[in-house]
Amino acid sequence: MSLSLDQIKETLRAQRIETPSWAYANSGTRFKVFPQPGVPRDPYEKIADAAVVHRLTGIAPTVSLHIPWDRVDDFTKLAEHAQEQGVTLGAVNSNVFQDEDYKLGSVTNPDPRVRRKATDHLLQCVDVMDATGSRDLKLWFSDGTNYPGQDDIRARQDRLATALREVYDRLGDNQRMLVEYKLFEPAFYTTDLPDWGTAYAHCLELGPKAQVVIDTGHHAPGTNIEFIVAFLLRQGKLGAFDFNSRFYADDDLMAGAADPFQLFRIMYEIVRGDALDPAYGINFMLDQCHNIEAKIPAIIRSVLNVQEATAKALLVDRDALGEAQRSGDVLAANAALMDAFNSDVRPLLAGLRAENGLDPDPIAAYRRSGYQEKIATERVGGEQAGWGA
Amino acid sequence: MSLSLDQIKETLRAQRIETPSWAYANSGTRFKVFPQPGVPRDPYEKIADAAVVHRLTGIAPTVSLHIPWDRVDDFTKLAEHAQEQGVTLGAVNSNVFQDEDYKLGSVTNPDPRVRRKATDHLLQCVDVMDATGSRDLKLWFSDGTNYPGQDDIRARQDRLATALREVYDRLGDNQRMLVEYKLFEPAFYTTDLPDWGTAYAHCLELGPKAQVVIDTGHHAPGTNIEFIVAFLLRQGKLGAFDFNSRFYADDDLMAGAADPFQLFRIMYEIVRGDALDPAYGINFMLDQCHNIEAKIPAIIRSVLNVQEATAKALLVDRDALGEAQRSGDVLAANAALMDAFNSDVRPLLAGLRAENGLDPDPIAAYRRSGYQEKIATERVGGEQAGWGA
Amino acid sequence: MSLSLDQIKETLRAQRIETPSWAYANSGTRFKVFPQPGVPRDPYEKIADAAVVHRLTGIAPTVSLHIPWDRVDDFTKLAEHAQEQGVTLGAVNSNVFQDEDYKLGSVTNPDPRVRRKATDHLLQCVDVMDATGSRDLKLWFSDGTNYPGQDDIRARQDRLATALREVYDRLGDNQRMLVEYKLFEPAFYTTDLPDWGTAYAHCLELGPKAQVVIDTGHHAPGTNIEFIVAFLLRQGKLGAFDFNSRFYADDDLMAGAADPFQLFRIMYEIVRGDALDPAYGINFMLDQCHNIEAKIPAIIRSVLNVQEATAKALLVDRDALGEAQRSGDVLAANAALMDAFNSDVRPLLAGLRAENGLDPDPIAAYRRSGYQEKIATERVGGEQAGWGA
Amino acid sequence: MSLSLDQIKETLRAQRIETPSWAYANSGTRFKVFPQPGVPRDPYEKIADAAVVHRLTGIAPTVSLHIPWDRVDDFTKLAEHAQEQGVTLGAVNSNVFQDEDYKLGSVTNPDPRVRRKATDHLLQCVDVMDATGSRDLKLWFSDGTNYPGQDDIRARQDRLATALREVYDRLGDNQRMLVEYKLFEPAFYTTDLPDWGTAYAHCLELGPKAQVVIDTGHHAPGTNIEFIVAFLLRQGKLGAFDFNSRFYADDDLMAGAADPFQLFRIMYEIVRGDALDPAYGINFMLDQCHNIEAKIPAIIRSVLNVQEATAKALLVDRDALGEAQRSGDVLAANAALMDAFNSDVRPLLAGLRAENGLDPDPIAAYRRSGYQEKIATERVGGEQAGWGA
Repeated sequence: MSLSLDQIKETLRAQRIETPSWAYANSGTRFKVFPQPGVPRDPYEKIADAAVVHRLTGIAPTVSLHIPWDRVDDFTKLAEHAQEQGVTLGAVNSNVFQDEDYKLGSVTNPDPRVRRKATDHLLQCVDVMDATGSRDLKLWFSDGTNYPGQDDIRARQDRLATALREVYDRLGDNQRMLVEYKLFEPAFYTTDLPDWGTAYAHCLELGPKAQVVIDTGHHAPGTNIEFIVAFLLRQGKLGAFDFNSRFYADDDLMAGAADPFQLFRIMYEIVRGDALDPAYGINFMLDQCHNIEAKIPAIIRSVLNVQEATAKALLVDRDALGEAQRSGDVLAANAALMDAFNSDVRPLLAGLRAENGLDPDPIAAYRRSGYQEKIATERVGGEQAGWGA
Repeated sequence: MSLSLDQIKETLRAQRIETPSWAYANSGTRFKVFPQPGVPRDPYEKIADAAVVHRLTGIAPTVSLHIPWDRVDDFTKLAEHAQEQGVTLGAVNSNVFQDEDYKLGSVTNPDPRVRRKATDHLLQCVDVMDATGSRDLKLWFSDGTNYPGQDDIRARQDRLATALREVYDRLGDNQRMLVEYKLFEPAFYTTDLPDWGTAYAHCLELGPKAQVVIDTGHHAPGTNIEFIVAFLLRQGKLGAFDFNSRFYADDDLMAGAADPFQLFRIMYEIVRGDALDPAYGINFMLDQCHNIEAKIPAIIRSVLNVQEATAKALLVDRDALGEAQRSGDVLAANAALMDAFNSDVRPLLAGLRAENGLDPDPIAAYRRSGYQEKIATERVGGEQAGWGA
Repeated sequence: MSLSLDQIKETLRAQRIETPSWAYANSGTRFKVFPQPGVPRDPYEKIADAAVVHRLTGIAPTVSLHIPWDRVDDFTKLAEHAQEQGVTLGAVNSNVFQDEDYKLGSVTNPDPRVRRKATDHLLQCVDVMDATGSRDLKLWFSDGTNYPGQDDIRARQDRLATALREVYDRLGDNQRMLVEYKLFEPAFYTTDLPDWGTAYAHCLELGPKAQVVIDTGHHAPGTNIEFIVAFLLRQGKLGAFDFNSRFYADDDLMAGAADPFQLFRIMYEIVRGDALDPAYGINFMLDQCHNIEAKIPAIIRSVLNVQEATAKALLVDRDALGEAQRSGDVLAANAALMDAFNSDVRPLLAGLRAENGLDPDPIAAYRRSGYQEKIATERVGGEQAGWGA
Repeated sequence: MSLSLDQIKETLRAQRIETPSWAYANSGTRFKVFPQPGVPRDPYEKIADAAVVHRLTGIAPTVSLHIPWDRVDDFTKLAEHAQEQGVTLGAVNSNVFQDEDYKLGSVTNPDPRVRRKATDHLLQCVDVMDATGSRDLKLWFSDGTNYPGQDDIRARQDRLATALREVYDRLGDNQRMLVEYKLFEPAFYTTDLPDWGTAYAHCLELGPKAQVVIDTGHHAPGTNIEFIVAFLLRQGKLGAFDFNSRFYADDDLMAGAADPFQLFRIMYEIVRGDALDPAYGINFMLDQCHNIEAKIPAIIRSVLNVQEATAKALLVDRDALGEAQRSGDVLAANAALMDAFNSDVRPLLAGLRAENGLDPDPIAAYRRSGYQEKIATERVGGEQAGWGA
């Protein structure tokens, strides 16, 4: 089962990571958003930035959209713009958390009018998918409560199930629903989709087009994420990742920055479950905020971190690992895994890039390209895109 | 929906809490077990102690057994002994974690011989249930790994599913399987049943006789347990509780001692879900360790804590609560819940006990009874029961 | 040591809680700020709202300011306005986190120009104190880093110490510096003042005018806050509280809402340490965000929660408690504490208010007062105050 | 400031790690201790095992003792035995947690008789140090409480201070006291030394011979340990490490196994603070439990993990790092650190070992040595050493 170098390279060549349009825009904490020079002012400029990341890394050919942040009059035109830039439009993310009406929830709001409005927005996102040709509708809800007693926990589940069903039934044949969960924030007492179990139970009841999405920053302290990966793969219900990293809560730092060993363990479960190939159907997305660091190189760095973790996972000598596991040799089994993690895969990946006609060092290439200076100069006037834009 | 005092009393009269045989025995941490005078030396003495708790509280008429800790030659005789004492035998708990063979797991062990042995033990527990007339088989597995790579996460799920299936198929018509989950300890890297989602998914595949058991100490920091209660009730998959309390990990302190407000919120979801009545089928068990405090009064205290939380939950003015929730009045809704929590239900419960011919103050009654002195004197010689006994 | 009812009432009459100007204004999460009708548009209106809280509760006679949010041309005039309303100006809070320059830190910024600017702001806050007659300068820094390597952890401590020293030396005879710590947010990897130990060490080096402030929401999961209270009291270094409550991170919910038992334990340590009396010098402040609930009644509710926790703490039979503790009776000692917590102190406090000429139910009195409707009508036009305003 | 390869090698040659006698013995969780063949039966055999680790790694020349577990009639003889084996006796660890008397605490016990007994034990440990020539007395207390109200938090601090003072005053000129802290376990509500701040405050009051020891497994979730390292170095109060690793609580796994990136960050702060050299005075100890893995190779693996993390820390290009930090280039600064972490230092260390006449692969050398088979055969009969032995 251990792979040859050629097999490893071939697998790495096929890897795909999707970058999010909003990560190119301004973002921040509740305390402050620090704007950066050259930040995109509209969806077209976001896609241009994403295309730069793809041109330099070679493995980021799709861009997630966020509706209404990325709403345009003509999505066909936006899709054509993407294609001209060398990328395509990816998952459509709904946003039912930035309207006054959603103060006490969107699809789980006690007020039926607000639930209708929120569900209608989700249905419109499917319309957008029809226009863009996107396969994936990613649903994250900020819905929850801040105080014990504020609302009925169970009734909110009923409302959630009703809305999900209506949207599910609207999906086309080649469309999927990705259901995201999150422990807390912005709701502080209950969240209506707080953990993978809740998302899984809803997806199971909805049907095969509903799949769970794992955001790596959305768990309680001490949660073993690679276990969830392995379990959902076994159940056939892992649809996507939102990669990022965190030290405390949903910090949305660059993937692999806070715990590179965890990212490696996650990617090992993907490799072990034969789920890396795009044909398997998992959408490997980034979902990050670059609050204080330069945005485009931060996204490049994140893509490279996922790629390096994947290369290490592919290096695992699975024959040796399996033998040690079967014989109960705890230290030898751990060593087999660590041997791969402790390897330096950067030369391998630099070589692979060169073979593919890319610069071996995408970060350096970006710095040399002059793109940052160009957008800082050109993107003056207009309103910078941000979390609310 | 708000209840009259008579309805509240009637409901409280019907409440049932099961106490665990092992809580009457010595227990401790990995650092030290502090033995206590008068501790039982065999299952018969454990049941005698449990009977004292029931006589004083009036709501703890059943006792959970732990096999092999409570193995006796003749379970019919043990059941008769219980009946003479005024209690009956409750859930049977399997123990597949204290044999040398289980060092790397029981039903998920990489060695098929060990898996066979562990599964056979579970089947024997069903034999015990046949003898004792117990309805519930409670399964907790210490299975997991300590180091990344130590074993294959997904293969262990396959092994777990196989063992559970075999035991499930052995269950009689009136028997159930209660599947327990736990975040960590004694396994430190992965646990094969780490969270409610995993237990739920297995129970769903097994069938209607498999239900999830919530141990209130088995969660990651920040987990909202009452959400899990509400969700599992909605799915019809909540089979039992293991009550205890904790500040950090699985501290196994007296129920309600660490966070009485959380216990109240849990019991409110039970009341709201009409799941308190024994006919609903939830087994409300304690699962605690009294390492430094006197054991019998600690169990009485725990039973009372659950009862007080229940009484408060029953006091909630659900009409006012529902109206505030529907109108989106966050503060009024919170206040409706808090009004019940802030009430002092001890006079109500003391009165209820008096009406039922019990001492209004079970702790004081125990102290006056001389039972503690009696067992300290009589139970000399022999080996005290403990976690390994 | 147990108190008579008269002593309890006298103590409760003397209790003082300070409310924060910014809690009357709009606030939110990074996802959304939901504006509310009637929110103040300037510091004068904030103080008017705070005065309402004091008139109804009788124990909230001071208001914390935040600079520059509450900057006015003439602080003497603001102080007079406060006095007319029946309140006085309290602690001055510095804000060195909402300027572009502070992206990588304020007083710990690697750039000396930014450090100078930040320190100058702190010095200006002391000028404000001179004008308002405030005793307390409360310092919270968002300073920290998001990524390993981003800056030198130890050098930042040197810079922090330098700035604190300069400001400390500027304090007048009757002025104090309150140093606040926080685990994380908005910095995600390191925070320069992450825990009480760091704040304590700096305060110790600065001198007697520097004291630690405990914000109850600023700790790692599982931190025992009452231990910190007891320890800092023993060291003579507890200067103030920022009360609020939380389930996960720094949720800034109403004090006592998430864990009323914890608030009681904290207030018990205050009572046990004879530190409740204003003469002791602790500033008991609220620091909260009312994102979805009505602001003024939420603050009233928080004041009442602290008051109720205090009343329960005063009810503890300390003679019985001490005796049980000394004799090693774990259950009796715990019961002595719980007996007070389980008491319903609301009738006592309602009576106390009536004796003092206040409405026994401040929340109901507020609802009846028409103030909410009045401000919703009158405060139209202008810009609502908020976290950035 | 960046080091040449020669400087790196020289530094690595001087590195010293102390291994703990108890890690060679049986250990386990509260659920089960799994005995292993060949485990030592007395302190002499433990030292023999430690000597093997030193012969293979070249950097573990000292062994920590635990009293009374390692009590012998003649410590001079034990010291000679160690010297014959090529190692010396290191820190003396007190044990005041495994006697019936310590159920409610040792030096903080409410009973003065127990406090006297515990303090006397600590003084006897200094006698042992006199006999063994040990410099360090390591103090860890399991003291704390399980239930709110159980004992007076502040009075326990007074008792703790009294005991520490008496022991401190007994120390010889070249002896030190290392004060360890721990969040929880075995106490579940309060711990009398729960965090570094408490240990630091006590050490500061005691004097220069009292230093803080950081056990890497003793923190709340989300605690930034390298911050504490940097801070204590700045204060001159970091005396020692107890290395191990953890996913959840105090798991006591092999150092570097759970989070190798964290270990690297810790060692980087040590390198940055010029504190690696033995002359600086930090005692770098392991404190681990090998519950399911073979003990001697697990300790070798841990020593190598610390060594590899150190080598990576030494590889950091501190010139580049400092420049990026000073210029506020977040990504470049992070990259400078990560560049070192992502390097594979195993060839460097293998070469270094070969230069020093050691086998390049200590684990393989141990497996080949036949030592494990030898002790499994020879150490039959007698009682295996364990946590209680």
